[in-house]
Amino acid sequence: MEELKDICRVQVRFSEIDSMRRVWHGSYVTYLEDGRESFGRHYPGIGYADMQRSGIYAPIYDIHIKYYAPLAINDVAVIHTSYVYRLGARLDYHYKIYRESDGVLCAEGETVQLFIDADGELMVDKPDYYKEWQGRYLHPAEKL
Amino acid sequence: MEELKDICRVQVRFSEIDSMRRVWHGSYVTYLEDGRESFGRHYPGIGYADMQRSGIYAPIYDIHIKYYAPLAINDVAVIHTSYVYRLGARLDYHYKIYRESDGVLCAEGETVQLFIDADGELMVDKPDYYKEWQGRYLHPAEKL
Amino acid sequence: MEELKDICRVQVRFSEIDSMRRVWHGSYVTYLEDGRESFGRHYPGIGYADMQRSGIYAPIYDIHIKYYAPLAINDVAVIHTSYVYRLGARLDYHYKIYRESDGVLCAEGETVQLFIDADGELMVDKPDYYKEWQGRYLHPAEKL
Amino acid sequence: MEELKDICRVQVRFSEIDSMRRVWHGSYVTYLEDGRESFGRHYPGIGYADMQRSGIYAPIYDIHIKYYAPLAINDVAVIHTSYVYRLGARLDYHYKIYRESDGVLCAEGETVQLFIDADGELMVDKPDYYKEWQGRYLHPAEKL
Repeated sequence: MEELKDICRVQVRFSEIDSMRRVWHGSYVTYLEDGRESFGRHYPGIGYADMQRSGIYAPIYDIHIKYYAPLAINDVAVIHTSYVYRLGARLDYHYKIYRESDGVLCAEGETVQLFIDADGELMVDKPDYYKEWQGRYLHPAEKL
Repeated sequence: MEELKDICRVQVRFSEIDSMRRVWHGSYVTYLEDGRESFGRHYPGIGYADMQRSGIYAPIYDIHIKYYAPLAINDVAVIHTSYVYRLGARLDYHYKIYRESDGVLCAEGETVQLFIDADGELMVDKPDYYKEWQGRYLHPAEKL
Repeated sequence: MEELKDICRVQVRFSEIDSMRRVWHGSYVTYLEDGRESFGRHYPGIGYADMQRSGIYAPIYDIHIKYYAPLAINDVAVIHTSYVYRLGARLDYHYKIYRESDGVLCAEGETVQLFIDADGELMVDKPDYYKEWQGRYLHPAEKL
Repeated sequence: MEELKDICRVQVRFSEIDSMRRVWHGSYVTYLEDGRESFGRHYPGIGYADMQRSGIYAPIYDIHIKYYAPLAINDVAVIHTSYVYRLGARLDYHYKIYRESDGVLCAEGETVQLFIDADGELMVDKPDYYKEWQGRYLHPAEKL
């Protein structure tokens, strides 16, 4: 089936450049979040507003980033964000960050989000908004 | 009367250094906040916890920073935070940031906070926790 | 004469939202920088690359921001950045930040940049790239 | 042999709190860096100053963080940073972040740094300052 994927562009900011004149590695966490938010606008239903409405949030439980090539001032980061289906009450994304000027792959990342209810307890079952979202966008075999 | 003043030390972080090899000017906003939070632990009663308990927050309405000398990697910023009494429902601080190694004054700043109620409306009168705090720490002439 | 002015849009990021559910006041420093960088692409010649080439940088010496209304998640900040001509070796901007959804003015700011030479010394005279830039964009009466 | 390990404390800052009223996951990248810098002051020789002197830097090539429990305003993060010896021209650390108030393990992390020379090329051999550092602190069997 079709991959759920979004592409967005982010201009490197001066404040993100470190004293080695490359984007500080921690700024890529913001780029992944930019990717995730752009993905959420592309495939609506699991955005922050949906979480706030239901009182069920999905904080990050695991983040992993590998850096291959630097980004510098005046670069544009092209962020490819793909939804990764995995069984259970979890929300996984995979990211690839390219340098726009020459198409070089600069970094790759993965995040895992789990759901917590209004009391801050980890949820074993998927919240309704996530089931509905999966029902809308996933292949039946993945709607478990 | 005695000045209400707190002094705290903050180690410069690598992520705060910009490509000119000095602390990025925006990081000083965090230093002022570090100073304000340290001040709040020193003179308790107007900290974030008090605001959260009462539902009345005091967001920043004005910030002004002047930069005199740079801070670099391995520097320690010494932050002097002084309460500035001004008439009305407002919370003003003045800050001086020194470089610990040689005592040079690197920056000076001011912030103004106003109070907003649970509906996000600006308050004309001081919230109770602030009146109590002023009653505890200020000279009678300033308790208006 | 015509005002030198740039307008750019910045999507509020989740990481910029504070626990009061509004954009943290320090993030506006980044918005001003976004505005300045967009202005530099609009009127080229005084960008970071020009500074790096000549070895003469223009760090911020004064920043002042006033906050009028909050920005929240999903908001877009519309940043109006205007060049302010003042006599001498300095670079001044004025900023207005609007909320795109309803056009409300959320904040206003000003920055002053001074020039430092390769030894980190403050410059009394304007660097060549700045004189050329002023020659290109300013009215003769302001080219002093 | 003895583990090379440093423990440091970091006060949670207001600006690190997100709209879910917990420390934003990206701020932990700064905590790991705080741990690494404190480790460097504890076991000197591989700090940023050493890198700058030799012109050989060690940017992050891999970062992995797992989140177990939240940190909130007024919390203090206790960061345990351990050097992990692995064969080759690389610098590995493992981190554990505890909440000071109750000793709960909030996060665990790992970073890998590789060395780049003055031309930005990845180095196959360890730089001299790293060999000297390993010679000083590691067991002979690990000095390869």
